[in-house]
Amino acid sequence: MSTTAGQIIKCKAAVAWEAGKPLVIEEIEVAPPLAGEVRLKILFTSLCHTDVYFWEAKGQTPVFPRILGHEAGGIVESVGEGVTHVKPGDHALPVFTGECGECPHCKSEESNMCDLLRINTDRGVMIGDGKSRFSKNGQPIFHFVGTSTFSEYTVVHAGCVAKIDPAAPLDKVCVLSCGICTGFGATVNVAKPKPGSSVAVFGLGAVGLAAAEGARVSGASRIIGVDLVSSRFELAKKFGVNEFVNPKDHDKPVQEVIAEMTNGGVDRAVECTGSIQAMISAFECVHDGWGVAVLVGVPNKDDAFKTHPINFLNERTLKGTFYGNYKPRSDLPSVVDQYMKGELEVDKFITHSVPFSEINKAFDLMLKGESIRCIIRMQD
Amino acid sequence: MSTTAGQIIKCKAAVAWEAGKPLVIEEIEVAPPLAGEVRLKILFTSLCHTDVYFWEAKGQTPVFPRILGHEAGGIVESVGEGVTHVKPGDHALPVFTGECGECPHCKSEESNMCDLLRINTDRGVMIGDGKSRFSKNGQPIFHFVGTSTFSEYTVVHAGCVAKIDPAAPLDKVCVLSCGICTGFGATVNVAKPKPGSSVAVFGLGAVGLAAAEGARVSGASRIIGVDLVSSRFELAKKFGVNEFVNPKDHDKPVQEVIAEMTNGGVDRAVECTGSIQAMISAFECVHDGWGVAVLVGVPNKDDAFKTHPINFLNERTLKGTFYGNYKPRSDLPSVVDQYMKGELEVDKFITHSVPFSEINKAFDLMLKGESIRCIIRMQD
Ligand SMILES: NC(=O)c1ccc[n+]([C@@H]2O[C@H](COP(=O)([O-])OP(=O)(O)OC[C@H]3O[C@@H](n4cnc5c(N)ncnc54)[C@H](O)[C@@H]3O)[C@@H](O)[C@H]2O)c1
Ligand SMILES: NC(=O)c1ccc[n+]([C@@H]2O[C@H](COP(=O)([O-])OP(=O)(O)OC[C@H]3O[C@@H](n4cnc5c(N)ncnc54)[C@H](O)[C@@H]3O)[C@@H](O)[C@H]2O)c1
Ligand SMILES: [Zn+2]
Ligand SMILES: [Zn+2]
Ligand SMILES: [Zn+2]
Ligand SMILES: [Zn+2]
Repeated sequence: MSTTAGQIIKCKAAVAWEAGKPLVIEEIEVAPPLAGEVRLKILFTSLCHTDVYFWEAKGQTPVFPRILGHEAGGIVESVGEGVTHVKPGDHALPVFTGECGECPHCKSEESNMCDLLRINTDRGVMIGDGKSRFSKNGQPIFHFVGTSTFSEYTVVHAGCVAKIDPAAPLDKVCVLSCGICTGFGATVNVAKPKPGSSVAVFGLGAVGLAAAEGARVSGASRIIGVDLVSSRFELAKKFGVNEFVNPKDHDKPVQEVIAEMTNGGVDRAVECTGSIQAMISAFECVHDGWGVAVLVGVPNKDDAFKTHPINFLNERTLKGTFYGNYKPRSDLPSVVDQYMKGELEVDKFITHSVPFSEINKAFDLMLKGESIRCIIRMQD
Repeated sequence: MSTTAGQIIKCKAAVAWEAGKPLVIEEIEVAPPLAGEVRLKILFTSLCHTDVYFWEAKGQTPVFPRILGHEAGGIVESVGEGVTHVKPGDHALPVFTGECGECPHCKSEESNMCDLLRINTDRGVMIGDGKSRFSKNGQPIFHFVGTSTFSEYTVVHAGCVAKIDPAAPLDKVCVLSCGICTGFGATVNVAKPKPGSSVAVFGLGAVGLAAAEGARVSGASRIIGVDLVSSRFELAKKFGVNEFVNPKDHDKPVQEVIAEMTNGGVDRAVECTGSIQAMISAFECVHDGWGVAVLVGVPNKDDAFKTHPINFLNERTLKGTFYGNYKPRSDLPSVVDQYMKGELEVDKFITHSVPFSEINKAFDLMLKGESIRCIIRMQD
């Protein structure tokens, strides 16, 4: 039992007081975990686009003041009543989506979209009692996607905590909490390319690069990167991307360009852009008879996916995935093991690192498009 | 060797001289098979909607005079050079799509869309030499989808001939050449419902009833039939359909009605209508997390499949299938075996039977919607 168990912890957190304004490092109070909750000491966290979107809060419900952050690694400080799968001292990754273990999704082998703990970006409180565990001078500060990792201590639902190998370096595997698993899993769990096959990856951000890494690990021989920014190709080579197409360089739709390059279409396509046009192109560029396209990007509310139904009848498959179809609690430990065995390369995603006090620099780097992942060192 | 091998055979065929006009039984000449071809003696054939569409030739390229027919069973009369997988006397089913054995589709485990022998409804000649094997008084008569089974003898590409168990009754298994395999395979090969699951079947024509039969054989516990004609339900009960929804009976979209009936959606949906609205509903009525929808119906040229991409991201899968994903030459023999073992019930699809001389009655029955399958007895 740690000496802080059951106590309020005073610690530092980066608080987003207002949309788009720099985060402010504040001393806050973190209440102990209630039944079914876990309090984590965060050692490393990284910045993802989703943090930036909800910080900018353009077209999103603004929820402020809020502690953002959802890619992280840490150590269990204490657990609430009934929590048995982790104990103080365990190394763990918090995840923005969870596993209650009881609902039809958790009981299905195929789904990871837990009815209870599925991502909810508007909720700023704990599910159990509808309250926040964070406060400053008595004023509650809202949670973010159940994780709020831009704090030295955070409280999360036990279903959102994956216990991992304590030998795994938390400053590396922390990035598996979101984007990397999303892209990697989209390829290895959903698209499932065979060795020697061709894979098109639309969008070469962190998620797309992770999808390419999945294609590389699967033994795909042609990995075609598609992005509107040609400079992305140079970087993408490290992730196995060996051909590149910029839709802007062609007069015809990119799906036709890819079909010509590949004698009728790629075996698999993974869309990691959020652009509806890219979603349609990704589907239409797969080969008839066996092609599978997987959608990962989060579309706009009013987008419509539109194609001629004959494209399906000619035996193409279209799927979507959420968090790479990983069940966070059940599957994340083995992804960490894959990293430890050297199968999945994670270090190359990490382009920058800053001390906690300079967290706003991580935002700048992402906004300028300079970083893939910037690690924030909570104890520096 | 039959005595007719290598000779022109004079026999009876039902010729469609003009769009929409009754077929005329004529004495025609059938040339011997060239290299890679098979001449079959047809014993039983059945009528499918596709014959009727191309006979009516509304919105289709008119190709006349033509010998229609593509669901049939017969006996190999003679084979052309290089044909080794069948010999005279073998029992066989001709199929409108084939297997060349050489192309990427034939080599893929997943596809049955042979590059060479994929259905071509406009071609009225043999692939080998671009000529017809049928003539009357020297005037060529066109082929139909490579089968032209409304003739006592026909010539087909060897890749379109499935050799079957000679003990199988040809007056029953002839219906496996098209519609029944299409619907049955869509369920068992593509949708793959698990025992105890729920399956919605859109369209209760022959193809949809076969899809329902596939769900029954798979052990689905809820088989929900969806059709605009409520009287179809009574018939469909024989095929395992145990619930029924008529979209016309509801003010809200049928996908919402089904989601309410099934606590969020069915596990699988199979669309067998050709209606774009039914295709969209079939996709949107499957459960998030694991639902799979399969499109079978042939859409209109200008149809657009349209849905919100979030329906994919929530882990739904959409696929299409052609001929139930069966490879005709490789897979059809084992479907016949399934019938022989009593697993797949075929007899209940056969509602009528007429002698060859009354083939136009079979058209009347189908146009009035009275038959599922009407067998035409070529030798009566
Ligand atoms: N499904 C999930 O579970 C999940 C999880 C995390 C992120 N995401 C989503 O994945 C997507 C990618 O995330 P990211 O962090 O890598 O984003 P990112 O912005 O870093 O990368 C997106 C890339 O796509 C490119 N792009 C945009 N439109 C394009 C088009 N039409 N064609 C080709 N390329 C195009 C951009 O140039 C950019 O390089 C986002 O939509 C994000 O919301 C989904
Ligand atoms: N993909 C293939 O390989 C393949 C092979 C054969 C047939 N087909 C296609 O399968 C489809 C079905 O063939 P069939 O012979 O059973 O046709 P059918 O006309 O006998 O049956 C279709 C049924 O669908 C119903 N229907 C029409 N619109 C509907 C809607 N919006 N909602 C619900 N029900 C609706 C009709 O009332 C009818 O009962 C056709 O489009 C046919 O072209 C495809
Ligand atoms: Zn759950
Ligand atoms: Zn993220
Ligand atoms: Zn082939
Ligand atoms: Zn047919």
